[in-house]
Amino acid sequence: MPAVLAVLGLIFMWVKRSWVLKQDAGSGKMGDIASHIYEGALAFLNAEYKLLTFFVIGASIALAAISFIVPTTHILIVVAFIFGAVFSAFAGNIGMKIATQTNVRTTQAARTSLPKALKVSFGGGTVMGLGVAGLAVLGLTGFFIIFFHYFMGGEWTNVHQMTIVLETLAGFSLGAESIALFARVGGGIYTKAADVGADLVGKVEAGIPEDDPRNPATIADNVGDNVGDVAGMGADLFGSYVATVLAAMVLGNYVINDMGGNIVSEGFGGIGPVLLPMAIAGVGIIISIIGTLLVSIKNNDAKEAEVQAALNKGNWASIILVAISSLLLVRWMLPETMQMEFFGEGIQQISSWRVFYATLVGLVVGGVISAVTEHYTGLGRGPVLSIVQKSSTGAGTNIIAGLATGMISTFSSVLLFAVAIWASYAFAGFYGVALAASAMMATTAMQLAIDAFGPIADNAGGIAEMSELPPEVRERTDILDSVGNTTAATGKGFAIASAALTSLALFAAYVTFTGIDGINIFKAPVLAMLFIGGMVPVVFSALAMNSVGKAAMEMVYEVRRQFREIPGIMEGTGKPEYDKCVEISTKAALREMLLPGLLTIGFPIVIVLVPMVFGYENRLIAEMLGGYMAGVTVSGVLWAIFQNNAGGAWDNAKKSFEAGVMINGEMTYKGSDAHKAAVTGDTVGDPFKDTSGPSMNILIKLTCLIGLVIAPILGQDMTIAETPDIDEVTINTEIETEPVGVITSEVDEVEKERIITSEASVEPLTISEEKVALAEISSEVKQVKME
Amino acid sequence: MPAVLAVLGLIFMWVKRSWVLKQDAGSGKMGDIASHIYEGALAFLNAEYKLLTFFVIGASIALAAISFIVPTTHILIVVAFIFGAVFSAFAGNIGMKIATQTNVRTTQAARTSLPKALKVSFGGGTVMGLGVAGLAVLGLTGFFIIFFHYFMGGEWTNVHQMTIVLETLAGFSLGAESIALFARVGGGIYTKAADVGADLVGKVEAGIPEDDPRNPATIADNVGDNVGDVAGMGADLFGSYVATVLAAMVLGNYVINDMGGNIVSEGFGGIGPVLLPMAIAGVGIIISIIGTLLVSIKNNDAKEAEVQAALNKGNWASIILVAISSLLLVRWMLPETMQMEFFGEGIQQISSWRVFYATLVGLVVGGVISAVTEHYTGLGRGPVLSIVQKSSTGAGTNIIAGLATGMISTFSSVLLFAVAIWASYAFAGFYGVALAASAMMATTAMQLAIDAFGPIADNAGGIAEMSELPPEVRERTDILDSVGNTTAATGKGFAIASAALTSLALFAAYVTFTGIDGINIFKAPVLAMLFIGGMVPVVFSALAMNSVGKAAMEMVYEVRRQFREIPGIMEGTGKPEYDKCVEISTKAALREMLLPGLLTIGFPIVIVLVPMVFGYENRLIAEMLGGYMAGVTVSGVLWAIFQNNAGGAWDNAKKSFEAGVMINGEMTYKGSDAHKAAVTGDTVGDPFKDTSGPSMNILIKLTCLIGLVIAPILGQDMTIAETPDIDEVTINTEIETEPVGVITSEVDEVEKERIITSEASVEPLTISEEKVALAEISSEVKQVKME
Repeated sequence: MPAVLAVLGLIFMWVKRSWVLKQDAGSGKMGDIASHIYEGALAFLNAEYKLLTFFVIGASIALAAISFIVPTTHILIVVAFIFGAVFSAFAGNIGMKIATQTNVRTTQAARTSLPKALKVSFGGGTVMGLGVAGLAVLGLTGFFIIFFHYFMGGEWTNVHQMTIVLETLAGFSLGAESIALFARVGGGIYTKAADVGADLVGKVEAGIPEDDPRNPATIADNVGDNVGDVAGMGADLFGSYVATVLAAMVLGNYVINDMGGNIVSEGFGGIGPVLLPMAIAGVGIIISIIGTLLVSIKNNDAKEAEVQAALNKGNWASIILVAISSLLLVRWMLPETMQMEFFGEGIQQISSWRVFYATLVGLVVGGVISAVTEHYTGLGRGPVLSIVQKSSTGAGTNIIAGLATGMISTFSSVLLFAVAIWASYAFAGFYGVALAASAMMATTAMQLAIDAFGPIADNAGGIAEMSELPPEVRERTDILDSVGNTTAATGKGFAIASAALTSLALFAAYVTFTGIDGINIFKAPVLAMLFIGGMVPVVFSALAMNSVGKAAMEMVYEVRRQFREIPGIMEGTGKPEYDKCVEISTKAALREMLLPGLLTIGFPIVIVLVPMVFGYENRLIAEMLGGYMAGVTVSGVLWAIFQNNAGGAWDNAKKSFEAGVMINGEMTYKGSDAHKAAVTGDTVGDPFKDTSGPSMNILIKLTCLIGLVIAPILGQDMTIAETPDIDEVTINTEIETEPVGVITSEVDEVEKERIITSEASVEPLTISEEKVALAEISSEVKQVKME
Repeated sequence: MPAVLAVLGLIFMWVKRSWVLKQDAGSGKMGDIASHIYEGALAFLNAEYKLLTFFVIGASIALAAISFIVPTTHILIVVAFIFGAVFSAFAGNIGMKIATQTNVRTTQAARTSLPKALKVSFGGGTVMGLGVAGLAVLGLTGFFIIFFHYFMGGEWTNVHQMTIVLETLAGFSLGAESIALFARVGGGIYTKAADVGADLVGKVEAGIPEDDPRNPATIADNVGDNVGDVAGMGADLFGSYVATVLAAMVLGNYVINDMGGNIVSEGFGGIGPVLLPMAIAGVGIIISIIGTLLVSIKNNDAKEAEVQAALNKGNWASIILVAISSLLLVRWMLPETMQMEFFGEGIQQISSWRVFYATLVGLVVGGVISAVTEHYTGLGRGPVLSIVQKSSTGAGTNIIAGLATGMISTFSSVLLFAVAIWASYAFAGFYGVALAASAMMATTAMQLAIDAFGPIADNAGGIAEMSELPPEVRERTDILDSVGNTTAATGKGFAIASAALTSLALFAAYVTFTGIDGINIFKAPVLAMLFIGGMVPVVFSALAMNSVGKAAMEMVYEVRRQFREIPGIMEGTGKPEYDKCVEISTKAALREMLLPGLLTIGFPIVIVLVPMVFGYENRLIAEMLGGYMAGVTVSGVLWAIFQNNAGGAWDNAKKSFEAGVMINGEMTYKGSDAHKAAVTGDTVGDPFKDTSGPSMNILIKLTCLIGLVIAPILGQDMTIAETPDIDEVTINTEIETEPVGVITSEVDEVEKERIITSEASVEPLTISEEKVALAEISSEVKQVKME
């Protein structure tokens, strides 16, 4: 069913796309510029795909090797991986193409009216959103159906088989997230290198305005908006979407396990808890379509608030519809009550109502995080006004105020996440956490439509400027652009919230895959890895920031060279070599993303390999890797919030001067010393909010996904019996002298005897006797262990 | 014995102090200015003590309440707490007094020769160092002897009794660290408020040089150096010193526990592992005295390198001597082989050699962290030069480069800590981690002497400037000051390393106090607390930075008022009201430290109380608090390194311009645009390196100490038997229906039966049968648990 809904979504996307493409694309200079942007974007995509091909081949070989070593990892994981990468790249391709085709059509539409311009630009965003969501659901459900039939013959056998299905499916998610790494980090470097390079030489040195066609870097700058904000964000959410649903499916499988390993009598072929996350995602696509249809304005003289209200209406409508549909799906697809294992608290009875409450938690987080982000970064809000005030005493105080704002903003966001983890777990265990994430991600298509419309409007304004259209066109696109800036900030909030919840869900799935019974940070090696994990996002951010600096300097030298060598360029008679600048940004982005990428992928592998060389037990290594994952997640979330919000606040503090601000009783405008201080802040904030900050999302998700794919290796000396028993697993790891196979068969024998032995010895005892027996047993266990 | 050594140290301190005070203090204007600084410093101390009195009374009442609730916490903890606070305050008092008396004597000595000036200023530092270390060891050992006699009658009874002794002793450590919170955070706010305020109006607005006597804030600025760098650093290391030794003692007690609860046959009254940390600390004092005696130069025309070499000689000599004495003490006081419990790995045999290796790890960390810090912040090193280069393109790129440097620097530092944790734990468990910290801290007196001499030299230079002495005097003090800047940076590295290791040791002690068998971050509430813990240092830093901004603005208004209202102030005929500025800094510092202080103390309490209200098990709450502690430590260490190193690098990037630097082939000096950009960086770096960065040390240590004091409350529903058995403890928490007492007696009965039962059932089995039995037993345990 979800696959059908996904196809429906894709069909709607196609219809919408045809509608957008049928719109008038203007003519002459406009078309010329737009085609430059379109080609620049395609040039980046093609260069990226070339590099990715090598990466995908290399990673596929590594995965194939894993599948030969680990019995539970099937070679099909490689196929899933490749398709995940291809689907993600394809979704990015659709998004980039439509965005770079919609921009000029939006400009043209803005010549007639604002409602028309919104309709066109949001239409482009909708195509992007539905493309991403549709392909994600289609790919995931498609592969699930295939693997379900291949491994299990299309009907429930046991938890162990389903685990293999889901482990193989993890390849799809890994492929998607790998592409996201390149798209997000590379895109972030690209967009800021072009932006800073264009500004430094164009605005500062040559004194020509922004988006001036004489600036050779201006096309690269406009391409960058698409590469970073459209393709990067799209790949990011594509990855989150797939990973969240996958993690929820894994945990759903463990719910079945905790319920005794078979719930075929409950309907849905006995896999209701596994299917539910996909069902929510599928219905979410249809809901998003409804949501996008609600976004429209009628008034040609509308201001930002009206446009924002139209977007909000669509957004809230979809959130409410997801809540309602979650209720129906949860009640319909899940058993009335379930048993779930809570670590340290034993098995609990959970009614499906509590699962529904957990999904509500996710929806609330999605809504609240946007509000929190807007508070800290919004124009006219306290924090931004405070930065504006501090700008009057110079760049130093402006920077301190911006840093402090970003840091303070972690308080409410982290508190929100902590409460969300706690609440959704209390409602329905880690399955609840994963479903909270799934419910939040159900509106992905809608979120992306809102996110993507901003850069489209931004580009539309740039095209209007470059092709010297009448000022009212630019005014209309400016209104859309301004709303787009706000949605960009809140979109980043949504993205980090989704990454945080996704990582937690993956983290939980990781523990169940490895078969360990927890991650004990009181073991020093685990604690050491927690430290290292905490450090990685910080170093990653620094590398990304330095990359932007390096790439921007290359751009500066190239633009200077063109100004110097091409005759008549400043008079508008010589034609700048736009493609050279596009090429520099492209090459720099791809080159500079390698080191951070290596860090992300290399660290988990080193953490597994080094202790293996030292002869550590797999169980301990699994805990160490888990500690690392937790460190990366906690620190990554913090640094993402810090950097995104500081960057957003600096940006809007600078923008405040455009309309004029009151400082110490005086109206202060652009060009004042305070404004210059604010520009410095914005320079620092740019890589924060567009490169290193958003990269954190990918870092934490990819780290947890790599962990999940490695997990079966670490779990391989532990038996995954039909009903995995933690006590048994512990024992197995402690008896190291025997080869794995032997233990497995012995345990199976023990399994058979279990019911007889345990019932025989426990049943006749009264409660107080039981306690004594318990203590006796425990001392026996200890005694045996010691020997 | 350690008490005797401490007294010896204090006697030597007194001798040194008399010698310093006998030095010529100069006359006329010099003395006048010096007495202003002295009085300003005392004014701050007195105001601080007043506030602290209220705090100590409040905290004592809270502790008394705890001691009534928790049977194992004795009311004497309140006495220990008060003495800890008083000792720490007294040590701060000695340090501040001697520092503010040595400064003018250094100026006077610099009129004759550089070697003399070094001798005097370093003599002052030595008094400070020995005062802190001597009082710390005296207080700790004194109270240990008292409690040992009070609770145990002066001879070994059992582990449980010793735990009570050490829990009560934790009060001393808590008192010391509470004072450190106020001294470090308040001092950090004080010094930067005065510094920024003095500079903004004096240097920028009025155009008068630094340390000009016409500037009303100049005395406050000089007082600030003492308040922040002398008293703050002193209290910080006093706290680390006490906490480290205490934590090592607690873990030593658990070594005895793991060895069967009685090692009286091994000598030292059966408490060798508990006494060892105190012995190392005591011997460290004598070694530090030897080290300080080695610091001297002969050449009157010596440059920075020679002075630095003299300090290094003393420092390395003491490190090597500590290594030798640790070897002797470890081999002498510890049993030849010990049994230690490694969580998840069972009991291991540890020879005392391995404990010695663990102490070596600590010494290496202390040495390497200084080198790493110097690499990232040192003049003429790559990172600083790179920031200098980036200054040429403006403040924005300077800031990005500084932030990136601080962020990158976390890589090697965190890797070092991670390896240190891992290695010292692998050698000798958490006892090894704690002893590594103890060995590193053994040279505290020497470290503090090196640290404190910097601000003294800085002050001496200020006095020379203000009293218009001949330029060669200022040149000589400048050499000392310049060396002092380097030692200040490396000292901060030492302080954060000590705080990190101390926190880990406290963390380990916490787990043993609560009786939990680990902290499982796979439990969602624990994970949520890890997130919250990670966030607290970030918010704390932001609050501290904002406080500096607020306090500095007050100072600016006051200085402006004085310039406006006092006639003849600029001509040197009117006398500025120095005390008004001192008062503003003092009040602001004390007021602004409250919120961060509240955050530090309040969060752990809330984390314990809220779940109690929700009816969570104590065991889970203990894990949650542990997760919080880990989050604070990991994130706090990261932010401390990041902020300290970024701040230090910015500072030296700015200083580089004084001698001139080569940028793009051109020599660039003070006053250039690049220099102005570097000044902006320094403005941002000031609160980073002097306020929020160093405060992290206190935050993480105090958090872990509060946890340690709360621990017995959380452990109270678990039995601390003579040989605590983790399996039993687990069982106890799961049987909640019975009162504690009953279970205890039952467990004791079981204890007796244990040997018979377990031997009877296990002995006759062959190896392969054993495994089956093991599996049976485990399934029985599970069966029983489920019911």
